[in-house]
Amino acid sequence: MYGWAGKILEVDLSNEKITETKLDEKLVRNFIGGRGLGVKIFYDRVGPDIKPLDPENLLIFATGPLTGTLAPTSGRHCVVTKSPLTGTIFDSQSGGFWGAELKFAGYDAIIVNGQAKKPIYLFVNDGKAELKGANALWGKGTHATTDAICKEVGDDKVKVACIGPAGEKLVRIAAIINDKYRAAGRGGVGAVMGSKRLKAVAVRGKGRPKIANESDFNVHVRECQKLIKENPVTGTGLPAYGTAVLVNIINEHGVLPTRNFQTGVFPTADKTSGETIVDTILVRNKACFACPIACSRITRVEGAEHEGPEYETIGMFGAQCGVDNLEAITKANLLCNDLGLDTISMGSTIGCAMELSERGKLNGPKFGDEKAIVELVQKTAMRDGLGEKLAEGSARLAKECGMPELSMSVKGMELPAYDLRGIQGQGLASATSNRGGCHLRAYMIGPEILGVPNLVERFSTSGKPETVIIFQDLVSTIDSLVLCEFTAFALETVQYAKLLSAATGIEFTDEDMMTIGERIWNLERLYNLREGFSADDDTLPKRLLEEPMPEGPSKGRVNMLSKMLPSYYSFRGWNSKGEPTKEKLKELGLA
Amino acid sequence: MYGWAGKILEVDLSNEKITETKLDEKLVRNFIGGRGLGVKIFYDRVGPDIKPLDPENLLIFATGPLTGTLAPTSGRHCVVTKSPLTGTIFDSQSGGFWGAELKFAGYDAIIVNGQAKKPIYLFVNDGKAELKGANALWGKGTHATTDAICKEVGDDKVKVACIGPAGEKLVRIAAIINDKYRAAGRGGVGAVMGSKRLKAVAVRGKGRPKIANESDFNVHVRECQKLIKENPVTGTGLPAYGTAVLVNIINEHGVLPTRNFQTGVFPTADKTSGETIVDTILVRNKACFACPIACSRITRVEGAEHEGPEYETIGMFGAQCGVDNLEAITKANLLCNDLGLDTISMGSTIGCAMELSERGKLNGPKFGDEKAIVELVQKTAMRDGLGEKLAEGSARLAKECGMPELSMSVKGMELPAYDLRGIQGQGLASATSNRGGCHLRAYMIGPEILGVPNLVERFSTSGKPETVIIFQDLVSTIDSLVLCEFTAFALETVQYAKLLSAATGIEFTDEDMMTIGERIWNLERLYNLREGFSADDDTLPKRLLEEPMPEGPSKGRVNMLSKMLPSYYSFRGWNSKGEPTKEKLKELGLA
Repeated sequence: MYGWAGKILEVDLSNEKITETKLDEKLVRNFIGGRGLGVKIFYDRVGPDIKPLDPENLLIFATGPLTGTLAPTSGRHCVVTKSPLTGTIFDSQSGGFWGAELKFAGYDAIIVNGQAKKPIYLFVNDGKAELKGANALWGKGTHATTDAICKEVGDDKVKVACIGPAGEKLVRIAAIINDKYRAAGRGGVGAVMGSKRLKAVAVRGKGRPKIANESDFNVHVRECQKLIKENPVTGTGLPAYGTAVLVNIINEHGVLPTRNFQTGVFPTADKTSGETIVDTILVRNKACFACPIACSRITRVEGAEHEGPEYETIGMFGAQCGVDNLEAITKANLLCNDLGLDTISMGSTIGCAMELSERGKLNGPKFGDEKAIVELVQKTAMRDGLGEKLAEGSARLAKECGMPELSMSVKGMELPAYDLRGIQGQGLASATSNRGGCHLRAYMIGPEILGVPNLVERFSTSGKPETVIIFQDLVSTIDSLVLCEFTAFALETVQYAKLLSAATGIEFTDEDMMTIGERIWNLERLYNLREGFSADDDTLPKRLLEEPMPEGPSKGRVNMLSKMLPSYYSFRGWNSKGEPTKEKLKELGLA
Repeated sequence: MYGWAGKILEVDLSNEKITETKLDEKLVRNFIGGRGLGVKIFYDRVGPDIKPLDPENLLIFATGPLTGTLAPTSGRHCVVTKSPLTGTIFDSQSGGFWGAELKFAGYDAIIVNGQAKKPIYLFVNDGKAELKGANALWGKGTHATTDAICKEVGDDKVKVACIGPAGEKLVRIAAIINDKYRAAGRGGVGAVMGSKRLKAVAVRGKGRPKIANESDFNVHVRECQKLIKENPVTGTGLPAYGTAVLVNIINEHGVLPTRNFQTGVFPTADKTSGETIVDTILVRNKACFACPIACSRITRVEGAEHEGPEYETIGMFGAQCGVDNLEAITKANLLCNDLGLDTISMGSTIGCAMELSERGKLNGPKFGDEKAIVELVQKTAMRDGLGEKLAEGSARLAKECGMPELSMSVKGMELPAYDLRGIQGQGLASATSNRGGCHLRAYMIGPEILGVPNLVERFSTSGKPETVIIFQDLVSTIDSLVLCEFTAFALETVQYAKLLSAATGIEFTDEDMMTIGERIWNLERLYNLREGFSADDDTLPKRLLEEPMPEGPSKGRVNMLSKMLPSYYSFRGWNSKGEPTKEKLKELGLA
């Protein structure tokens, strides 16, 4: 017996029908929960005939067996769908408190199907679910929406995941925002929610997940907390400076994407660093549910206190746009949260627009225009003026302007703030990511820059395919637990296995943790192949493959993807076209 | 019903008799556990006819209702006895893992009585206790003792609290060391253990404390962890730099005791700061049991890794002795841990000896002699040469040399590393401390220097008596829970009350938390009055009251104790002689 509630809520918006199903224990054994569970359900039910913004696309909110427990970072959830930005299967992970609250309400997952006739929202309250009209909420920002729902249902402890105007207007880089500041940010999942006319999912519960073996579980929780506290990244660096601790580190390695990845050195980067945040706008740290790290920052700009900005946001609105004004970046960040936009894709797309403008292909702002980054966020969310073009993301924008190579994206999704010319393994990870340009599918910055768990030569391709594969599989598992990837700085598979086994009462070995991750990774690959993706899509922007880095500590480098990709396929047990072999699929139970 | 094991182990060493008693729930309601429990038992059983090193002095090891649970910092224990340094009732608190392990073994407390005929140690193993010969351990350091016991009982998970040579030789500043690096450090509690010929108490258990209301408890635990993580001191400062974060802060306020408190400014203090530790000898952070702060440091000196040094140790072996060599300080610290000495009293006593030597009253080393601080630790523990004099502590040393005013102590115990001329409230707290010179009975450094919970003017006496009283009562409660005082940077009484109520199933309000603390404080006062202490003993070294600070940011200041003390007595509900009134005692149920 496992200890979670074991119920899945299925909501058909077209018919306003709500049903409940029991979670199959076999799914837990093979896919755990969260991303794995969502991907499995999605693969079985949504074929290539269904487009991302079709009513038949599913939007799955999923938690895992550890969600809502004392396990470190257990407040998270993930959203699985087909992405309107990439066309791939997609999952987007979010922190905060919403995931835990869904578990407290008695559900492990919500599958949303169909399209409502008019704007509505779903209210899940302690074992009951109902659809409520959202006409009055439509058009509102995520903050006002959250407040209005709490007021309407008369409970300020309700946790709200919702879209802003960007999602409503089907902006391809729209996010789903929960707890006002946490985002299932990437891939345009907010547009899928908007296409369903689902403004919000509000949850509230007073139940608590049952742990199969409470005494063992508490011992493991303490061990994990201790490891996290004693690790230099999770115990010191992130608490002290937040994710923005990376700004100076990445810049000093000459890999901070600057002016649409034209260089990796941004001389005034320190004006936007975590250290500067501490010295200027920081009010205090903030922690998500059950998180011993507390990397989030409460900051004060123009008299108001909000959360953020995170490193990726700073990189993309900062150096990528040639901007070193921390207040402008913070304002752009806040607007993205309120209007419901992905900060990475938004910042990168503005940077792309700036380069297109400098090259005379677009009538837009130039690099360094700190006013523009704030204005263009607003315009993109509203599809207003130039924003109409930016709302499609950088790949479509650059293509429309006749210079597709200026979109710094993979499979249509914008790359985050690492110039992959100076970090070979991260380049391979980004090219082979099942959801496009992404740092989270395998965070090679750990070994290649931070030296965690141990430092490897960042300019070398040697050993990178093997390491990328291990990280990709491990992260697939962590996303399925559902825990924060930052825990992996301090924990190993054995700790995850112990937590999961004690929580569920099902025995998982540390080897199981890797096998399950590999199973999920391969299933996602199968999905994308079924959609028509091929090895040709496992690539990087031409700039990173062909234009040597012009200056700084990574000067002269390009990413040597072609040296790594064949080995990657081979070590994956895939053929040379990047297709899983029958033997591999059989081994993983996916035949 | 409350959830702890509820058993007390009583060990009569004279007759080698071990008995068990059940803990009275009424004691829990009125005194919680830990310090409160120990003090109550001690007050009822040990009168003024019994001297600290008499067999009849009790040595009580006590945990609290939260020990061994998931409550933050719940691994601690405390030791209650009559101090051979001060002659007062005394409790000394220690971190690490030993306290939790005692709880796991099924006991809340151990009362040790009598004197063994030959060296022995107590082994408490999962509900059973036995006395074992310690002839082979006698003379060994605490590290070798710990290893030898683990080997002898064939279990490396055994937790050991033991004395080193210093305790065996009845050195008045000897500590009891647990988990190799954590100390019930102050007051010479190690000498009491030595007088009983009890080398060690080794504990091992596989049980887990029962929580009365697990679901509520887990919610409160998470809330506390969140508050601790988000607080700037416990979430950022202490994890990043450990307690040594204070070195530069205290020095910059001109209150870092330098050369036996002759001045408060040590120009090269930064060479011994927490920041310098991070840049030089730090290997990683370390956390005690269930601690979300992890302030301890693993450091490497001369190729070997050990824990420490903490701020007070650095202050006392550093500035107090005019030494700015971090490696020498770290070696002195390590020797204190291994030989079983209190670093504060040891460092301060060496500083006192240095001033006596400079004034021609003693044939000893002068200020700045970094070799001497290491050598004198060794000699003191062994009562060798000059060490024989230092082993009596600075008060007896200075008196013997004819300059008693050069001992920087209160009630015979050395003051920690804060010059009280520039911190008025901390001066009052130190003068009125029931266990002598101590920063922990009321850590006024929080409000007066760090601005936590809010900054008050450190040179002013206004409002200080009230604040000191609140802090003294609160700490009495925290010591009884038994939690780490650092939690009080982030938590308020309401959080402690919630944790305690959920764990025990007994309803405690936040007002109860303060009343219990006040009850304990008054009972300790009654004990000391019964021993012959009076208002005359509520004082500070003459230097701090009469010699203005010669330089720096606190220049010209003295501590204005006499302006604060009458109000303190009055606000305490005591008469002008510092004796609790009948009304106050009645109110507290102590009549």
